[in-house]
Amino acid sequence: MNFELEPVSAAGARLVELAEKHAAEFAGTAGEYDRAGGFPFPHWAQLRAGGLLAASVPAQLGGLGVDSVQDLVVAVGRLARGDASIAIGAAMHLSAFWYFSRMPAAPAPMKLLLRRCARGRVVACVAISEPGTAIGWPRTTARPAEGGYRIDGRKTFCTNSPVATVFLSTVRIGDAEQLGFALVPRETAGVTVLDNWDALGMRGSGSNDVVFDGCPVPAGMVVPAGPLGQLPTAMLPFTMAGALLLVGAALGIAERAQELVAQPAAGRPVRPEVARLVAENEVDLAVGRAAVGRAAALLDDRLPAGPSGPQLHELMSQVQCVNVAVKRAAIAIVDRALTVSGGRGYLSSSPLSRLYRDVRAGPFMQPFSALDADEYIGRIRLGLEHT
Amino acid sequence: MNFELEPVSAAGARLVELAEKHAAEFAGTAGEYDRAGGFPFPHWAQLRAGGLLAASVPAQLGGLGVDSVQDLVVAVGRLARGDASIAIGAAMHLSAFWYFSRMPAAPAPMKLLLRRCARGRVVACVAISEPGTAIGWPRTTARPAEGGYRIDGRKTFCTNSPVATVFLSTVRIGDAEQLGFALVPRETAGVTVLDNWDALGMRGSGSNDVVFDGCPVPAGMVVPAGPLGQLPTAMLPFTMAGALLLVGAALGIAERAQELVAQPAAGRPVRPEVARLVAENEVDLAVGRAAVGRAAALLDDRLPAGPSGPQLHELMSQVQCVNVAVKRAAIAIVDRALTVSGGRGYLSSSPLSRLYRDVRAGPFMQPFSALDADEYIGRIRLGLEHT
Amino acid sequence: MNFELEPVSAAGARLVELAEKHAAEFAGTAGEYDRAGGFPFPHWAQLRAGGLLAASVPAQLGGLGVDSVQDLVVAVGRLARGDASIAIGAAMHLSAFWYFSRMPAAPAPMKLLLRRCARGRVVACVAISEPGTAIGWPRTTARPAEGGYRIDGRKTFCTNSPVATVFLSTVRIGDAEQLGFALVPRETAGVTVLDNWDALGMRGSGSNDVVFDGCPVPAGMVVPAGPLGQLPTAMLPFTMAGALLLVGAALGIAERAQELVAQPAAGRPVRPEVARLVAENEVDLAVGRAAVGRAAALLDDRLPAGPSGPQLHELMSQVQCVNVAVKRAAIAIVDRALTVSGGRGYLSSSPLSRLYRDVRAGPFMQPFSALDADEYIGRIRLGLEHT
Amino acid sequence: MNFELEPVSAAGARLVELAEKHAAEFAGTAGEYDRAGGFPFPHWAQLRAGGLLAASVPAQLGGLGVDSVQDLVVAVGRLARGDASIAIGAAMHLSAFWYFSRMPAAPAPMKLLLRRCARGRVVACVAISEPGTAIGWPRTTARPAEGGYRIDGRKTFCTNSPVATVFLSTVRIGDAEQLGFALVPRETAGVTVLDNWDALGMRGSGSNDVVFDGCPVPAGMVVPAGPLGQLPTAMLPFTMAGALLLVGAALGIAERAQELVAQPAAGRPVRPEVARLVAENEVDLAVGRAAVGRAAALLDDRLPAGPSGPQLHELMSQVQCVNVAVKRAAIAIVDRALTVSGGRGYLSSSPLSRLYRDVRAGPFMQPFSALDADEYIGRIRLGLEHT
Repeated sequence: MNFELEPVSAAGARLVELAEKHAAEFAGTAGEYDRAGGFPFPHWAQLRAGGLLAASVPAQLGGLGVDSVQDLVVAVGRLARGDASIAIGAAMHLSAFWYFSRMPAAPAPMKLLLRRCARGRVVACVAISEPGTAIGWPRTTARPAEGGYRIDGRKTFCTNSPVATVFLSTVRIGDAEQLGFALVPRETAGVTVLDNWDALGMRGSGSNDVVFDGCPVPAGMVVPAGPLGQLPTAMLPFTMAGALLLVGAALGIAERAQELVAQPAAGRPVRPEVARLVAENEVDLAVGRAAVGRAAALLDDRLPAGPSGPQLHELMSQVQCVNVAVKRAAIAIVDRALTVSGGRGYLSSSPLSRLYRDVRAGPFMQPFSALDADEYIGRIRLGLEHT
Repeated sequence: MNFELEPVSAAGARLVELAEKHAAEFAGTAGEYDRAGGFPFPHWAQLRAGGLLAASVPAQLGGLGVDSVQDLVVAVGRLARGDASIAIGAAMHLSAFWYFSRMPAAPAPMKLLLRRCARGRVVACVAISEPGTAIGWPRTTARPAEGGYRIDGRKTFCTNSPVATVFLSTVRIGDAEQLGFALVPRETAGVTVLDNWDALGMRGSGSNDVVFDGCPVPAGMVVPAGPLGQLPTAMLPFTMAGALLLVGAALGIAERAQELVAQPAAGRPVRPEVARLVAENEVDLAVGRAAVGRAAALLDDRLPAGPSGPQLHELMSQVQCVNVAVKRAAIAIVDRALTVSGGRGYLSSSPLSRLYRDVRAGPFMQPFSALDADEYIGRIRLGLEHT
Repeated sequence: MNFELEPVSAAGARLVELAEKHAAEFAGTAGEYDRAGGFPFPHWAQLRAGGLLAASVPAQLGGLGVDSVQDLVVAVGRLARGDASIAIGAAMHLSAFWYFSRMPAAPAPMKLLLRRCARGRVVACVAISEPGTAIGWPRTTARPAEGGYRIDGRKTFCTNSPVATVFLSTVRIGDAEQLGFALVPRETAGVTVLDNWDALGMRGSGSNDVVFDGCPVPAGMVVPAGPLGQLPTAMLPFTMAGALLLVGAALGIAERAQELVAQPAAGRPVRPEVARLVAENEVDLAVGRAAVGRAAALLDDRLPAGPSGPQLHELMSQVQCVNVAVKRAAIAIVDRALTVSGGRGYLSSSPLSRLYRDVRAGPFMQPFSALDADEYIGRIRLGLEHT
Repeated sequence: MNFELEPVSAAGARLVELAEKHAAEFAGTAGEYDRAGGFPFPHWAQLRAGGLLAASVPAQLGGLGVDSVQDLVVAVGRLARGDASIAIGAAMHLSAFWYFSRMPAAPAPMKLLLRRCARGRVVACVAISEPGTAIGWPRTTARPAEGGYRIDGRKTFCTNSPVATVFLSTVRIGDAEQLGFALVPRETAGVTVLDNWDALGMRGSGSNDVVFDGCPVPAGMVVPAGPLGQLPTAMLPFTMAGALLLVGAALGIAERAQELVAQPAAGRPVRPEVARLVAENEVDLAVGRAAVGRAAALLDDRLPAGPSGPQLHELMSQVQCVNVAVKRAAIAIVDRALTVSGGRGYLSSSPLSRLYRDVRAGPFMQPFSALDADEYIGRIRLGLEHT
């Protein structure tokens, strides 16, 4: 019997099939990109050509028409089994477009963006981290200028940046203590994508710094999102779906690690300690799948009703519970797989040594990192005001 | 928003409502029965009269007609919030009758049993543990005798025994290395229910020893179940549902503990360490609920198709993953609640001190105890033969 | 080979021998006092008569002349193997008298107290906890009155109170924001020792509430100890030794639990999971003994030099590291022992079920409880001011 | 106050000073060797020239004359703060020479070896791992041949191999089921040191495969060591000292990680979660140092008396307890440091990203790896025969 997570819609089933195909294509060279620290441009070309990036674009606009967060999460998890760097890149893009396509009465430019996405012309980069400041307090500014705004600042951990066509960035609007989101097309004057991503893992994710130096953007491309410091309520559905898709990637990594070490014994004796570690991985996988599945189902079930701000925070808190638990579990699973490998997994030639580094990226991802999540969850549970 | 597990059928909703009503009735005196170590006979009378014990009996036979394991699990969890001892007793009975009512073409005596159950005349006790031997190797014997069998042996941890009307017991049949199940009515000659249950927790569960001294039972009441030592395939649906219902009780205890310490701050300052522990409990609760819900949904989804033996073991392994994880999590949740209580929870006057003892019973329950579960899960995953 | 902690001085060796003798005497009836929740007055009579309570009193004043904290810690651990309730009571008294006997140029009344202690006439009760307030913010007041002070307030968790002859209590002095310590003899007018100790564990410790209702004490018996809210520097040696002695009790409980389940296999087959749990207990015991031993050696080594305030806090932080780690480990050890017992340990007739409840008291003990210790350690390490 | 482990002898103090000097020299370039995966030949030249490798060689033979295991452990830990790859290399060599120099009435060739070591001419490589077999069952053979033996086989994880002048290898002697140790000089015909070490961490340790192809060695250089499969009693002092030195390296890595993130706050606000993680690291460091110190002191204290075989196994079991606990703790400490770093530590430019990979090597090291240690400890504790 198969106990992995499954898509819930027909469109989702097509998406997941596509993700599995890509995962198989990418798995063979994931190690090479990892070792060289290079960005898998050919793989992104395949993703763009194959339609996966248009998952959430409505069918009438040329996309796959996937509405369900669960379908997206499952697809990201399948991708991560082949190449986790690509999976988190896809997750960033997919969550942005899932959000865009949910916008009621989307204005014409958004429809255009969706159509272009359906033709594989768009890759979104979520650029919300900055060195030395928290997520709700960007130092990147959007100052009123002729015809709209002028964006200045520097973003970090910009996954996908080598192929991104548009940057979805947090900004501080004008002189007010106002948070906002800006859409900055890559071709905008003043945009520089650095080539400085060199990290422990997720080495093929192209998570470079991006510099905005007086980038002019039209007024409609900067959206105010409430006071600084707060997770903006209007963006919560985007951030919770985005967070959950990244959890899906962690789960996919863990599933791959277990697959590598838990092959049928086929007559060979199995040491009790090996069997125990395999069993503990099964426990964590069963629970992790359930947790991801339930959180996705909650979003699919409750977001359409248009929850209030406090309700959105309660939903987000559930997503964060799963975020904390499943990323922790995924790290533990890969670690046990390494132990079971008995030293072989520690060699660079083993995919386990890559998975071990990739999976550790999870708890740094926003919102919320391991330093923040418990505080948020605790505040929501104890009815303290939301931050 | 409410994120607790919910029943999935209308019949289940009625059952859960009933369970919540009983939980409220029992909560007030659970501490007294605990302290005195007495058995809550009046509460069992209420259960019998109210219809909860007939949950799985088909409506046409007078019961509530609940088919779904998830509905039963949710009901047991609700009961456990009020009194965990009663909840595990109800779980034992409910899993037995869920199994009985699933039997295709149930023979007349079984229909009679179901009807009597619907009238509150029956309480089943699952008597499968014995001192000094593993669950698949009972020393209790069923020897052929005039008109059927004669049962001799001693069972331990017989939850519900003070009110049980019938004992569902594992036996060793004849001189063969054959495992079997025997139904022994309480009024059978030679049945003695001891009054020796005195334990750390679950003190109101009446988990006494029961002695069978030459008890005559008709042939039809002893069912062979395969070779000794093995978890009999035919009984797997019963044992997996039974195990999951007990996990539901653990979850209910944990939910109650969190409720006791995670009250809205209401303006009071909250220490960061308190908020963190409350948050970690939220994480474990969210994941635990998801795990229990998914395992129950798997059973509801896949058992009707009549899985093969190996498939049943794979399902059982999923249940065991949840069994391991959620009982561990429930213990951790109650422990954190105790820490949050700052010493007050350690006093006998606090329900937390009872929950702390009750919840620790979980990992001893069969199948499988904490000493056995990982071995089983590992063997199934690695394709070793089932034991 | 024996790897348990050993005394470091000849006087300590005599003390430890005495502790082992008492542990053997008390072990048999510890369960009875636990069950009844009674206070073991006869055992305290034995302790007073045997000289153990005079451990730190200088030999020339009639005591055993034990200077070393390590010797005291080892003795408390040995006692805890027999009866943990008595061990924590002894720890409270011993730490107070270790502190008294270190006082340079002790005034005449103190010498008298030490002499009386040597004759078994004194039992000290450390009364520093109050309901609803933190340890540095007592609500109990010492107001100037004729001939000294008048003490009013209520203390809780007053271990030893049934036999205590003197209460060492934290007070708030006058109207100033001043913390102080008061010595209140039991026979003082207005002292009431309640009989309200009824808890999950440590049931024989007599940790009742004590009420001071206008108790007159002479001026010399109230010692100012710095501003409210702070752990007074002058008292740090007392509080760190006291904390470490209680850790010694936790270690002794853990040693006893392991002894109960890790008997030589003597030819019987041992399940791998049982061997693993026993091994994990060995790991925790080896490390726990080392940690307790090193912390005690640090105190014995560095306190005589008269460290500065900040240095005392650094030493205290090391003690707290051990406090956190070893109490956690002790709880884990008893828990594993319970698992190994396979259900038998869960019965009230098993000493394990008592150890499981007793050992959980550790993290509530001050200074610092599990809610406070990490905050303190973190502040010291990061060079934040001491609180 | 300083709470790090200290040497116990004057010779040890000189050794530790030397180790600290080298650590400072190597720290700056450790990252470069790590990135390139190259072997730090210049650093090994410094080690040879400076005398550290002659630590255990008696002073009269030109060495530092360090007898104490604790002194060696402290030195290895200091080295590891600068470069962990070099530290484990030094540990391998130092444990071999500590063992050689303890040999009573060492024969002339051994004296020569020690003298040559004192002049920096010798680097020992402990070659005891082989792919696909356990440590007591080498497939490398020593077959009788003219003038002694002929060695054939392949060893793996041969730390130090690029500079090793002599290989200390486990062999299977003749056709008997006999385990042995062979000393194979590098210049022996048929020795090939591969250049195939490429791993997750410890990348500068040169842990290549080494092939013996018909290598002739004189009879005296092959020492029988009991039946296959067993940890040979005669070698236990060597293996336990060797294991503990490697634990020392793990501790040094952890100390370095904590130093990187736990800088004085200096007026900046500190988030509670950061302070908590720093505190948990302090807890693990305090306990880890205590554990390593106590195990080393036990060896220094009890080995000189010449313990019996069973006693040696009990000592080894204590070392293994510390091995398990401290390597686990070191991994947890580096992991928490990474979390505290908030993403910056995940970048390749941060030493934390190297420490995270290096520290994970610990549990693979023999004897015993994480897969073996608990089984060994459990068997010793339960009095099962030693394997």
